[in-house]
Amino acid sequence: MSLLVVGSIGIDDIETPTAKRERIYGGSAIHFSFAASFFTTVRLVGVAGDDWPSECTEALSERGVDTIGLQIKPGGKTFRWGGKYSEDMNERETLFTELNVLGEFDPVVPELYRSCNVVFLANGVPQVQHKVMDQLPGAHLTVADTMDLWINMQRESLDALLKRLSGLVLNDAEARLLTGEHNLVTAGHRAREMGPKFVVIKKGEHGAMFFSEHETYVMPAYPTENVVDPTGAGDSFAGGMMGYLAEKNAFDPKTLKEALAYGMLTASFNVEDFSSDRMLRLTREELDQRMAEYRKMLSF
Amino acid sequence: MSLLVVGSIGIDDIETPTAKRERIYGGSAIHFSFAASFFTTVRLVGVAGDDWPSECTEALSERGVDTIGLQIKPGGKTFRWGGKYSEDMNERETLFTELNVLGEFDPVVPELYRSCNVVFLANGVPQVQHKVMDQLPGAHLTVADTMDLWINMQRESLDALLKRLSGLVLNDAEARLLTGEHNLVTAGHRAREMGPKFVVIKKGEHGAMFFSEHETYVMPAYPTENVVDPTGAGDSFAGGMMGYLAEKNAFDPKTLKEALAYGMLTASFNVEDFSSDRMLRLTREELDQRMAEYRKMLSF
Repeated sequence: MSLLVVGSIGIDDIETPTAKRERIYGGSAIHFSFAASFFTTVRLVGVAGDDWPSECTEALSERGVDTIGLQIKPGGKTFRWGGKYSEDMNERETLFTELNVLGEFDPVVPELYRSCNVVFLANGVPQVQHKVMDQLPGAHLTVADTMDLWINMQRESLDALLKRLSGLVLNDAEARLLTGEHNLVTAGHRAREMGPKFVVIKKGEHGAMFFSEHETYVMPAYPTENVVDPTGAGDSFAGGMMGYLAEKNAFDPKTLKEALAYGMLTASFNVEDFSSDRMLRLTREELDQRMAEYRKMLSF
Repeated sequence: MSLLVVGSIGIDDIETPTAKRERIYGGSAIHFSFAASFFTTVRLVGVAGDDWPSECTEALSERGVDTIGLQIKPGGKTFRWGGKYSEDMNERETLFTELNVLGEFDPVVPELYRSCNVVFLANGVPQVQHKVMDQLPGAHLTVADTMDLWINMQRESLDALLKRLSGLVLNDAEARLLTGEHNLVTAGHRAREMGPKFVVIKKGEHGAMFFSEHETYVMPAYPTENVVDPTGAGDSFAGGMMGYLAEKNAFDPKTLKEALAYGMLTASFNVEDFSSDRMLRLTREELDQRMAEYRKMLSF
């Protein structure tokens, strides 16, 4: 089962307490695609400028990601983001944001992609997320991410989107903002009542919570000392989760839980190096080995 | 196997965003004892003034807690603490602390208790924790809690204590302070290298992490919407954990993991009402039913 992702394509400058990297590739669709590529064929829709490094497109192709939907705008510049992490890596400050070609992103789903029935709408303008859904009337499972900006500024459009979704993935602060509830269990239920069949709240180093009509559970993150660059962890989590669902072509409770676990693990690898560098070296065998450890950790 | 706990006995004033309760019983040894009482005979060593409500001592006795070691100082006042919780219940402010009789606490372990071989030293002056250990040369398993004050002010004595312990239980901020490490996995390993055979880092609503020479794992908290008063959650966690270890009289990896899970659950019940009110209504059946749910939540 193939998987479509629509999201940002970016060139990032990242500063951590111990290192600094400039002009490395990033963006939600990139982190998502590498993570999902371990499970299924990923079809990527996004926009970049002609400063976009072709080696990233090649690296995606090597991992089996179909990049026909990656539009390169001649004369345009790729979305740029700069961030600096705090001493404990748990907080970050945005140093700059330059929307560039992402500002006028009008995603067109290539004809070839319209048969995809598993879809991930990475964080973006809700109106644009709607437009993508309009082009994919046959999607079985559509999951979206969002952020504080849209919760605050585009609430009506976001509310309408929530009613169309199979699943919503967002972080703890966003879940609290969306629902006005402090307790995350309450927030998860409230968010689900807004439309999506399931909600996943990402808690960073503390794991993730899952909410459906009949199930509420929390899964811890894989504990690691090796955190080099947390950028893209959330998108990598979504990539692992959606990739596994597309691979299995099943969305029952058991498969969803396994998918969440895989998401936790793809994220745990993604943070081990800058950009998608760790994902480029990763193998499915390493992923499955870590899954065995993770299962062992949770069984008692 | 019986379990000895040495810790504070207190009378608390608690303010949450929705309620206020005055002169309710608290203190580490009280929260610990109620939680542990579901598993084994608890022997409590502590000190209170003659303002201590006898109904709490009776409630402890009804739960099978041996209170011979509870000294009542005639003319003295019980330790008092007042705290106010933030809107999201995750932070609290100390409104007042009156040490009273706890300030001169010189624990004497009754002769009858000296055969206890499972011991918990709740947060207290390290020098006093040493004195308790001196009176229990036959203890098989001694676990202690500590806090920022002793890490900052009594470091030498605390360092010497760590070398004598089987286990150390502390929260995430304390683990970071003790080790100077931001990453909690690294902090857990460093703390273990300071002496204890195992270390448990409590992360509040995010669960707990376990570190021994050969094992590192994290267990999530039981997700609950029903948080009325978080006071004593950490002590209640320790009570469930130590109570189960004493019940099983085994300290192997498998039993330790089950013990951690029980600690998570006693804590999840403790926060459902003020003081130990929920624990007074709790049954072992309810605990085991929640354990079944917790196991199900973690299995996939």
